[in-house]
Amino acid sequence: MRALIASLCLVLVAMPLTAQEQQFADLGTCALESGEELLECRIGYRTVGELNAAGDNAVLIPTWYGGSSETWVGLQAALLGEDHDFYVIMVDDLANGVSVSPSNSEAQPGEAFPEITTRDMVHSQYRLATEVLGLESLHAVMGISMGGMQTFEWAVLYPDFMAKLVPIAGSPKLAGHDVALWEASKRLYHWSAECQCREAAEALTAMRLMNATTSDQAGVDMPGDSVAASLGRVSPGGMDFGLAWNLTRQADAMIATDVNRTLGGDWNAAAKAIRADMLVIVGARDHVVTPGAASDLAELMGESATLIVFDNNCGHNIPGCEMFRSRSLIREFLRAED
Amino acid sequence: MRALIASLCLVLVAMPLTAQEQQFADLGTCALESGEELLECRIGYRTVGELNAAGDNAVLIPTWYGGSSETWVGLQAALLGEDHDFYVIMVDDLANGVSVSPSNSEAQPGEAFPEITTRDMVHSQYRLATEVLGLESLHAVMGISMGGMQTFEWAVLYPDFMAKLVPIAGSPKLAGHDVALWEASKRLYHWSAECQCREAAEALTAMRLMNATTSDQAGVDMPGDSVAASLGRVSPGGMDFGLAWNLTRQADAMIATDVNRTLGGDWNAAAKAIRADMLVIVGARDHVVTPGAASDLAELMGESATLIVFDNNCGHNIPGCEMFRSRSLIREFLRAED
Repeated sequence: MRALIASLCLVLVAMPLTAQEQQFADLGTCALESGEELLECRIGYRTVGELNAAGDNAVLIPTWYGGSSETWVGLQAALLGEDHDFYVIMVDDLANGVSVSPSNSEAQPGEAFPEITTRDMVHSQYRLATEVLGLESLHAVMGISMGGMQTFEWAVLYPDFMAKLVPIAGSPKLAGHDVALWEASKRLYHWSAECQCREAAEALTAMRLMNATTSDQAGVDMPGDSVAASLGRVSPGGMDFGLAWNLTRQADAMIATDVNRTLGGDWNAAAKAIRADMLVIVGARDHVVTPGAASDLAELMGESATLIVFDNNCGHNIPGCEMFRSRSLIREFLRAED
Repeated sequence: MRALIASLCLVLVAMPLTAQEQQFADLGTCALESGEELLECRIGYRTVGELNAAGDNAVLIPTWYGGSSETWVGLQAALLGEDHDFYVIMVDDLANGVSVSPSNSEAQPGEAFPEITTRDMVHSQYRLATEVLGLESLHAVMGISMGGMQTFEWAVLYPDFMAKLVPIAGSPKLAGHDVALWEASKRLYHWSAECQCREAAEALTAMRLMNATTSDQAGVDMPGDSVAASLGRVSPGGMDFGLAWNLTRQADAMIATDVNRTLGGDWNAAAKAIRADMLVIVGARDHVVTPGAASDLAELMGESATLIVFDNNCGHNIPGCEMFRSRSLIREFLRAED
């Protein structure tokens, strides 16, 4: 039996690393925007495709809130097309439970994990791209939701490192509505972790239902009865403390997002600081990441930004609700000559 | 000292009851829609103006969620005009802490207080109007938010008892979004009452901020920084258990609201069952009581309903944000001949 396992392991080790498999980069210590240090700074990532000879086909994709590179494997094919010739790098964001996180850090577990920003996530991705993958530039950065927030931060932090940017349902600075959502959510996570009770899980589910779609759709597609049914299906267990801290650190990163905070609060300065072309996709009735700031910045950028507003009933669930149109827009944008 | 108090009491007792003072009607036992009985069924109310000789100038106003007749004293003058000649009856809804409620019932305190519906509130108001005030009809029923829900229930329960109905920011049946809001809220009240902790109060404040205005306005008028400031001002004490149960029973009453539930679920039947003229005022971007069902019912009613949609940035805060226009619309509607 042991011989069988040993031979199986040899076969596995001998196999070349296939695309899409989970990989890790050890960055040592990551210096944080706050001045603190993130120890054991290990970043998870997956890749699809290969870098071309010119080295100009890399597309970096950060993840959304609570998401992982795994969740992007199928979606990148859907959004870029199965037949794309990009070298796609999907990165696990700090504190997502795969990269170094409150739930897995031995040096800084749980509450001891320092507060991070979306800018810290971007810096770790830049180090992955340059120090580990040896890239001198990216063709594009693309992200959804918190990934879209990071895409905006990429735009001002490394303005010459990529040619194109695609923030989807993201924001360069959160509106009060969105901040309130994450402030409420954070408290519910910790209540759930402490009480291990069904009520906290139900409250979290109810708040998710309230914000995941537009009020319009909630009236049509989500009758009141179905809310009770959803609450009835809630798993009664409470949240793991590690997960509560992961989600808290990522929520605080979103709350602190403001591409302008090093530019004197001047949005015109931010618009001028961005040198890559940008395709900004927002949902008119997105009640998780409200579209105001992204739309305003796109307008200020003039011809170097294209603003696409999906005025559908899917709330934050863009581009999922308009996948065909999204793919068409993104493929055309990424392939266009500057 | 005792003589002084006694003489003061005599003076107070001897004074005629002035308009707007808190009054109570003891209805004995209120039979509930559920089949249960609400004991010590005492209803608070206030009146302004006097019934005219023809007996056709009474306007009954139920309260909003958590509100009281006291909160309506100034508002009725603002909405109907200081110079109106109506006999206004402002009623404390069941479980509002003034009328019989979980917080004040000796027979059925706290959790022992039976579940009630907005329809039960309407039945108690009908008994107040007929048994206590001796009215044979009302000129109108008008209400805001949960008061608007009760106005819709009045429309189908007592279709010939009033000539006019003004539901404002109300709904004949809650959408999933709104149900989710109250399901989350209920759980936060009880968490707050149990933990007596600052975190629960902050979560409740954050959820209120998230829904009180539109996402649009949240981006403009409520920057993220102001959310942190609001949370910093939260009173650290937890919620009183009595209040938690009051708000829970009223929330469940809203969740169960459905004027159609005795009409076979046919909205055309509901529209036909309503015989009073109706002025329906909704907020296009109201994220507390979403406007879909009220708008749809008004459309089905054809010429007997006038639908006014306020497309402003005030969310649920209508008519407060358009007081001048609201007063003008309501005065004209209430004075128009049939």
